[in-house]
Amino acid sequence: MNNPIAVFDSGLGGLTVVRQLIRRMPLESIVYFGDTARVPYGIKSAETITRFAQEDIEFLEAFQPKLMIAACNTASAVALPRLDAHCSVPLLGVVEPGARAAVAKTRNRRVGVIGTEATINSGSYSRCIKTLAPGVDVIGKACPLLVPLVEEGRNSGDAIVLMALEEYLAPLKAGGVDTVVLGCTHYPLLKAAIRRVMGPGVSIVDSALETARAAAALLAASGALAPAASKLAASKPDHTFFASDSPNRLMQLGRRFLGGVIESVGLVQPELIDGRHVLRAVG
Amino acid sequence: MNNPIAVFDSGLGGLTVVRQLIRRMPLESIVYFGDTARVPYGIKSAETITRFAQEDIEFLEAFQPKLMIAACNTASAVALPRLDAHCSVPLLGVVEPGARAAVAKTRNRRVGVIGTEATINSGSYSRCIKTLAPGVDVIGKACPLLVPLVEEGRNSGDAIVLMALEEYLAPLKAGGVDTVVLGCTHYPLLKAAIRRVMGPGVSIVDSALETARAAAALLAASGALAPAASKLAASKPDHTFFASDSPNRLMQLGRRFLGGVIESVGLVQPELIDGRHVLRAVG
Repeated sequence: MNNPIAVFDSGLGGLTVVRQLIRRMPLESIVYFGDTARVPYGIKSAETITRFAQEDIEFLEAFQPKLMIAACNTASAVALPRLDAHCSVPLLGVVEPGARAAVAKTRNRRVGVIGTEATINSGSYSRCIKTLAPGVDVIGKACPLLVPLVEEGRNSGDAIVLMALEEYLAPLKAGGVDTVVLGCTHYPLLKAAIRRVMGPGVSIVDSALETARAAAALLAASGALAPAASKLAASKPDHTFFASDSPNRLMQLGRRFLGGVIESVGLVQPELIDGRHVLRAVG
Repeated sequence: MNNPIAVFDSGLGGLTVVRQLIRRMPLESIVYFGDTARVPYGIKSAETITRFAQEDIEFLEAFQPKLMIAACNTASAVALPRLDAHCSVPLLGVVEPGARAAVAKTRNRRVGVIGTEATINSGSYSRCIKTLAPGVDVIGKACPLLVPLVEEGRNSGDAIVLMALEEYLAPLKAGGVDTVVLGCTHYPLLKAAIRRVMGPGVSIVDSALETARAAAALLAASGALAPAASKLAASKPDHTFFASDSPNRLMQLGRRFLGGVIESVGLVQPELIDGRHVLRAVG
């Protein structure tokens, strides 16, 4: 099937999922939407997050995707069942793939999860992990500063990043976890610092990577992968990007998240009645 | 005139302006709207900030205010002339009052301004100060972490706050400014730390306080202050609060900004066509 994989996020973070999708499935077309006008979702209520995510999905459904990925941990954690009921195509969130990987990796059955306030308060990772493996202890910790730190361009070598992580990760270290789930798509950009603060012998689960694996497995199982023939025909898959604000910023900052060049970004406002129209393309 | 003063902000920060308005004009009714569903504005584009602020104003115009205050430095800095053209009542922003106070306070004619990315990039404070006093040098510095730090509940005694301020304020100290404008309504909550980092002999201009002074002067000059008679009649002025998300959060966190109890908060979605209706009241 040549239909694209659709991916949405509150902003730039979901590009870490796109990066892993491209690495694993280079023949697939992808259409991405980042809701940069209303970013962040992680400090907002479940009702508002659900409404925003429904509008994101409605916009992307126009591209007739074969799979919809909520590459936003907050939306996945807070709203997935409600979103699934309204989505016309299979919908994959980032929570379950991350939870599965954590259960597979932990040896001492003590898992830490870090994420936004809304993700941690929802208790979704904890519930999902305990459903998969009832005896596993889960310590969740909201880390509200990490998204602004990454969006400001700071990385693992930054003194404020390290100080914030020392504070946020203290209860996970005290609890003796041997596995930490990065429950936010921004956090892979701070993986080195998180590894350094947690110390050796602690596994890091990157939910972006696990979600890409789950997506590939799901498409393979349903026979919906893009045909390899398109490689022979030299037809390049399309990678299309949209944002609801500052498309230039998505192009520039997006490279850090995507690990590659974004050639153009369309501007859309999915909350408007005529929101399915692209207002402007930059690039 | 018993019509209320209308005040809007991207979120909670504008409550520091309301606090100063109540202190100076205890007889005035006030209606406040915080756009907490789309907060923050400071990392977004001028187009999006203008659109959001126009919707905020449209919602508040239904209360027939005698004065509209853009208690959001970002909206004031980026969009005031465009907003003014569409606002049916006098519109006051926070930039000019802060700029005037800085010009009055500086002795060495070197002024620092701190604010969000959008506020600093707009150059509005710098332009306004140089119009009032052409010989004054202005050093602007965007401080993207300060809003998330305040919203997380951190205060002037917090180690991460102090580390971030040491970094952000370094160019202001190096430039020898004797006056610093707090160009964001969240920053008065970190005034003690800013004073500590800048050292003695540096004046701090609180744009919330200066805006309340300017509002009082404007209403007095046009004879539009609430009549003192309402005090005799024991009719308490109304202080009414609305938010576009998490009204409970506005009630709880709002106390720190307002310095008093918020009894109830209405939930509204000004971007919807029927957005003028209150969806739900909490309290």
